[in-house]
Amino acid sequence: MKRIEHIGIAVKDLEAANKTYKAVLGAEHYKTETVESEGVATSFFKVGESKIELLAATSPESPVAKFIEKRGEGIHHMAFYVDDIQSEIERLKGEGFRLLNDQPKTGADNKIVAFMHPKDANGVLVELCQEK
Amino acid sequence: MKRIEHIGIAVKDLEAANKTYKAVLGAEHYKTETVESEGVATSFFKVGESKIELLAATSPESPVAKFIEKRGEGIHHMAFYVDDIQSEIERLKGEGFRLLNDQPKTGADNKIVAFMHPKDANGVLVELCQEK
Repeated sequence: MKRIEHIGIAVKDLEAANKTYKAVLGAEHYKTETVESEGVATSFFKVGESKIELLAATSPESPVAKFIEKRGEGIHHMAFYVDDIQSEIERLKGEGFRLLNDQPKTGADNKIVAFMHPKDANGVLVELCQEK
Repeated sequence: MKRIEHIGIAVKDLEAANKTYKAVLGAEHYKTETVESEGVATSFFKVGESKIELLAATSPESPVAKFIEKRGEGIHHMAFYVDDIQSEIERLKGEGFRLLNDQPKTGADNKIVAFMHPKDANGVLVELCQEK
């Protein structure tokens, strides 16, 4: 894992959360993106070499909607940048971890991504991501 | 906010979690530290310019023990590095945020720290930290 690529935060209202995090971080979000396949609208803030990704559901069936229903707003996942996602998936499987995606899938921000099973990482949903 | 200083993860068993995160990150933790005033034993892993901080309770009254009791293991807080914590506290108060600490207090890893109220940041416990 090279660096924390981003921290994903599940929010109810993206526009309101953009204002909140602008005030927290002292800088505007630099882009927004909707990933229909994941049922999320996202916005990104830069902090050092990492990003904060705000995530709002675009439908009640969205995983983000279900997360908020169950746990409330808050940190949803932690993503690490890797140079070679396929070999990282194989390495982690070799270590005994379960991956939610055997093959990388398209994520936001021009990335291919895969998620680890949170039960194998102390309740943390870990995302691997690589530039597409 | 200059960078993500660390992500704090609440775990039940620090030794077991050290093995898990060694396998996830592909590197050993580089230090452990107990902060009696906070009721936590911690260990630190380096990832790029940031750290992963594992937190285990040292007593049943520890905030980390209460967090795990309520929500299970998982991400507990997100910490940003700031150059001048006192002026950052004043800036955030000026923006209308509530701080859990008006004055910085001693944290782990030779830092002075202050926490924002999670209700003001979409359920995220945000920590500010500065080198002591």
